[in-house]
Amino acid sequence: MNMTTRITCVCPGKPIRRERADAVLALAEAEFPRIELSFADQCFEEHGHFAGDDSQRLNAFLAAANDPQVDAVWFAMGGYGAMRIAAPAIAGLTQAARGKTFLGYSDAGTMLAALYRAGIGKPVHGPLAGDVRREGGEDAVRRVLRYLSGEEVALEGGLDERPVAAFNLMTLAMLCGTELMPDLSGHVVLVEEVAEHLYAVDRLFFHVTQHLRGIAGLRLGRIGDVPENDRPFGMTEEEIAMYWCERSGIPYLGRADIGHDAANAIVPFGVARSAVGA
Amino acid sequence: MNMTTRITCVCPGKPIRRERADAVLALAEAEFPRIELSFADQCFEEHGHFAGDDSQRLNAFLAAANDPQVDAVWFAMGGYGAMRIAAPAIAGLTQAARGKTFLGYSDAGTMLAALYRAGIGKPVHGPLAGDVRREGGEDAVRRVLRYLSGEEVALEGGLDERPVAAFNLMTLAMLCGTELMPDLSGHVVLVEEVAEHLYAVDRLFFHVTQHLRGIAGLRLGRIGDVPENDRPFGMTEEEIAMYWCERSGIPYLGRADIGHDAANAIVPFGVARSAVGA
Repeated sequence: MNMTTRITCVCPGKPIRRERADAVLALAEAEFPRIELSFADQCFEEHGHFAGDDSQRLNAFLAAANDPQVDAVWFAMGGYGAMRIAAPAIAGLTQAARGKTFLGYSDAGTMLAALYRAGIGKPVHGPLAGDVRREGGEDAVRRVLRYLSGEEVALEGGLDERPVAAFNLMTLAMLCGTELMPDLSGHVVLVEEVAEHLYAVDRLFFHVTQHLRGIAGLRLGRIGDVPENDRPFGMTEEEIAMYWCERSGIPYLGRADIGHDAANAIVPFGVARSAVGA
Repeated sequence: MNMTTRITCVCPGKPIRRERADAVLALAEAEFPRIELSFADQCFEEHGHFAGDDSQRLNAFLAAANDPQVDAVWFAMGGYGAMRIAAPAIAGLTQAARGKTFLGYSDAGTMLAALYRAGIGKPVHGPLAGDVRREGGEDAVRRVLRYLSGEEVALEGGLDERPVAAFNLMTLAMLCGTELMPDLSGHVVLVEEVAEHLYAVDRLFFHVTQHLRGIAGLRLGRIGDVPENDRPFGMTEEEIAMYWCERSGIPYLGRADIGHDAANAIVPFGVARSAVGA
């Protein structure tokens, strides 16, 4: 392991606010003297919804991923946008990308999926730099920085010899059956969702369980910030997950400690290892 | 053609309010003496989000679809729920269902898709009975009643010898790659959406264009009631549609006159014919 871990943040979807990036940089500087952390300028660009147009986001990702001096690419924000650049991003990767860790979740799960499908690098579900804004967010940032510098960090509990992958439910649903979707046969698949009505969660479960037949099982993360509807849905999120797992013959394996919050666990794709260098 | 057209309304998703059903019944009685219209009791049931539990909705659909005295099944409301019952619904259909017209849209598009895949009956995209509540809704109801009784009615414009299908974009996205999805190769596919952010529309277009390679082309209906976001998306809905069509090699064929509104055009699935009895 290098004495120094070099981490570059990029934003494949939405931009990160400057003050939040500064908070992450300050924390890293104060507490992680052996980490060199930087944010690509692209993280602060604005182009409609996005952190720069498709070319800017693609080029920033490729510059970081293909830089042999960079150990890890950390996705700084989610939102939406990775689906527009993931295919050309994979096509543009060079040998230097193969040893890297790529970490994030939510919309950035699209990048993890595409990398995992291509067998490039080490995709890891975990907090975004932008999660620093959340209650407890500094601890989420510390967890990522410790993980990326090769320290022992508590990962998602209950991981075993079976390969695993973790996704935002909507992101996974949009990936199913596309050129970005990895083969998750035999995998334990963890899903979480935020800000979706329970009827939409039910609908997403129909879609993903249809596509995920052959996985080892499904675990349900947090379904957060469910908007109030004009009527109760009539089932809890766990009843929804269990119903669709049962209907599609997918083992339901209980809850997972992932979600759009600071407690969001780190889940390395594939067979779990405790840290980058392990 | 029978002198009398018998139409039964069912609700595979949400219930319809009694006063709206009454308004549709009154209009039919006043203006369509040769139509016998009825609402299944199930339409007024409430079970959480749904118009009765899955069994009630399934049984009401099958009772109407398998009744040899019924000429058409009219989906009275959308919302969400058809995905839970569509597979057993198709499995339970008998010979009596084969000659029938099934009409609706939005969530009910799931039923149309499953019927079209199975080659059973005549699935038709068109206004729901519950659209009576909209501005101009009585005209939407009249259009459906005229169509179902075999009168000449203006259909979606520009239909030609190519087969066609029309869907709510989210509904179509959730159907892609599932056991309910018909083969739309060679079809002109019309899509509309309501109450989704433009970033979600963009994401849905990624998903459906990945799945719809091989269609004859795509036409864009109305993208209505787009919620205000914290920033502009940066593209119009038509730019989104054209972008993803271009990327996936699907011909973009212009706009369509469908949407969650009273002007929502009637679009018979398959090769267009002007009316039920034509």
